[in-house]
Amino acid sequence: MATAPLKSSESSRELETGRKAQIYRAAAELIVQKGLDATSMNDIAKAVDLTKPGLYHYITGKKDLLFSIMQFAMDTVESLVVEPARSIKDPEECLRFILERHAGMTEYVREITILADELPALTQEHREHIVARKRRYLEFLRETLRGLKYQGKLRDLDVDIAALNAFATIIGISRWFDPLGKLTAEQVTQETSQFILGALLVDRT
Amino acid sequence: MATAPLKSSESSRELETGRKAQIYRAAAELIVQKGLDATSMNDIAKAVDLTKPGLYHYITGKKDLLFSIMQFAMDTVESLVVEPARSIKDPEECLRFILERHAGMTEYVREITILADELPALTQEHREHIVARKRRYLEFLRETLRGLKYQGKLRDLDVDIAALNAFATIIGISRWFDPLGKLTAEQVTQETSQFILGALLVDRT
Repeated sequence: MATAPLKSSESSRELETGRKAQIYRAAAELIVQKGLDATSMNDIAKAVDLTKPGLYHYITGKKDLLFSIMQFAMDTVESLVVEPARSIKDPEECLRFILERHAGMTEYVREITILADELPALTQEHREHIVARKRRYLEFLRETLRGLKYQGKLRDLDVDIAALNAFATIIGISRWFDPLGKLTAEQVTQETSQFILGALLVDRT
Repeated sequence: MATAPLKSSESSRELETGRKAQIYRAAAELIVQKGLDATSMNDIAKAVDLTKPGLYHYITGKKDLLFSIMQFAMDTVESLVVEPARSIKDPEECLRFILERHAGMTEYVREITILADELPALTQEHREHIVARKRRYLEFLRETLRGLKYQGKLRDLDVDIAALNAFATIIGISRWFDPLGKLTAEQVTQETSQFILGALLVDRT
């Protein structure tokens, strides 16, 4: 999985960003497998074919790394799911887009999503920052459900609780999906979207 | 929240069991709030009004405690949800029972459920034991959905993925429900059951 270390001549801004993403994903995978404390900076350096000093060029320490990983995960979700969804006016179309995009990227952010459980390890300030970003996503989902309710398309459900349940279901994929298992990412995306749409939408028959 | 320490003359088997449950819940709450490493045996002793040696009468150490907490959580779920559900023959009735019972006890096992994320901190043997117990519960849910499918009551969903999604939704309550928030446990139980039933069952109209 590890690639050869970059030569300094190649280190454009974009490569630097790609390198960081690679470090975050590798570190997240290690932390989820071994636990935060059992994962050393040495382990992470080895996983991405860097020396320990080379790794410190990108990150300053484990606590800081954890925050960077979560920021990276939120950046990814915002740019691939939330931002494009904001421009979709029809609430049902918007909901379908959110579900398919988020469920579909779950394999990509698998370890990173699970790391959300490491929130207590962050500083108070960093923790509040991440919680606020998650809350904005949830609020957007809630607004979308409010739109559906207004159109009479939502089942007889409390909008707040329904949004939390939909959110939990989609985030849940990260916890149970095994990219090496017998289910494909496409199947899981499709089925989970259907599950949540079935839960939320009034049947049109 | 802490109660007075028990006098040794009171320590019947039942009191001992109750005392252990109290320690597990208090410890789980601390670990979820502060993180596993930041929680000391001293903190736990203080939370349940015991001296540190007094606490060691009940538990042998933090790693062992974590396993005991998870075993306690699985015992509770099995005796209050799974075992009584096994005697319900009709799959729809059985599903409704599982959802309402499990969602309804979520406040009780809140911290404990979240601790499932600490699985990597267990020894390999203990981890496998807990994973196997969770898998038996999931398998029972899957069987119930198979029964619904056979009766034509299940939507056009993959049984395995549907069971995983239902499981994730119900476990998700533990992560987002705030017992001190504006939503009552009854509302959350009711709404989450409706959400999952809507997702799974063909509409009867």
